[in-house]
Amino acid sequence: MNICVLRLGHRLVRDDRITTHVGLVARAFGANKIFIANCEQRIKESIDNVSKMWGGDFTVELINDWRSVIKEWKKSGGIIVHLTMYGIHVDEVIEKIKNYKKDLLIIVGAEKVPGEIFKISDFNVAIGHQPHSEVAALAIFLDRFFRGEELKRVFNKYKIRVIPSERGKKLEVIK
Amino acid sequence: MNICVLRLGHRLVRDDRITTHVGLVARAFGANKIFIANCEQRIKESIDNVSKMWGGDFTVELINDWRSVIKEWKKSGGIIVHLTMYGIHVDEVIEKIKNYKKDLLIIVGAEKVPGEIFKISDFNVAIGHQPHSEVAALAIFLDRFFRGEELKRVFNKYKIRVIPSERGKKLEVIK
Repeated sequence: MNICVLRLGHRLVRDDRITTHVGLVARAFGANKIFIANCEQRIKESIDNVSKMWGGDFTVELINDWRSVIKEWKKSGGIIVHLTMYGIHVDEVIEKIKNYKKDLLIIVGAEKVPGEIFKISDFNVAIGHQPHSEVAALAIFLDRFFRGEELKRVFNKYKIRVIPSERGKKLEVIK
Repeated sequence: MNICVLRLGHRLVRDDRITTHVGLVARAFGANKIFIANCEQRIKESIDNVSKMWGGDFTVELINDWRSVIKEWKKSGGIIVHLTMYGIHVDEVIEKIKNYKKDLLIIVGAEKVPGEIFKISDFNVAIGHQPHSEVAALAIFLDRFFRGEELKRVFNKYKIRVIPSERGKKLEVIK
């Protein structure tokens, strides 16, 4: 199953760190790819650099035309989930979404998202109904989706990995 | 039980959005308070404004001397959890942490955290061992701690709240 994230509404400079965190969360929590709309090359490079060091097959694609990404996704039979505090509580819909067993595009906006996203999406899903963070929302959604197993996954082709430790920092570095 | 977050390593301007998201996640996921070290007044204002509109009793305290916060916490018998990818996997320690039934200070750093934090903390806890985001790490930790119940909580004294909806945005506004 293909799990992709579509990041909308990136504001230059202001959202640099947030968009990078969204990308890193997508990777660390088991998505295969992120599409980022209207974003600078250096954000892609910074996420790609993490993948080079820490492994896995995560990809970042910078796009201009997000509508065509959505159109293609629908055409290929995948479903679309939009994360929004206005939607239905994640715990009410997560099993239904999983039972589709279809490719999944998860849309994550910044502060404002075009109204059409609410209509285009198969599910508008709320990670609680309080304002917080698209970074947290994506993490919780993927954690619910993969039932926490995503955080135990071993990434292939790593050059560096953590040796879990009660105190301090231990790393294995492949030379 | 008192659950507080201590945000360390905020870098002016660069971390504005991330620190704001850490604060909003702390509030939305059931913490009572956040201490933010070396941070501008406007970050506090922006989190406080969310609390004014959306309710609850969350407080933000800007501090300069985080060592004294930690010292006081220890003196009063609370325990300290430091979220770090180098630590022990959350699923291995969360029940132990809960069983203490003590006040909990959760330390969340930015990119680099002083080495002493690893020694001072009772638990160094990893939300997986891949690099991602302190925003996501805090959300997942609190979600595990409260077993997802925190996302169903109703905040008191709200002026505005979401009416969950399959499509679009519905709000109740108290006049």
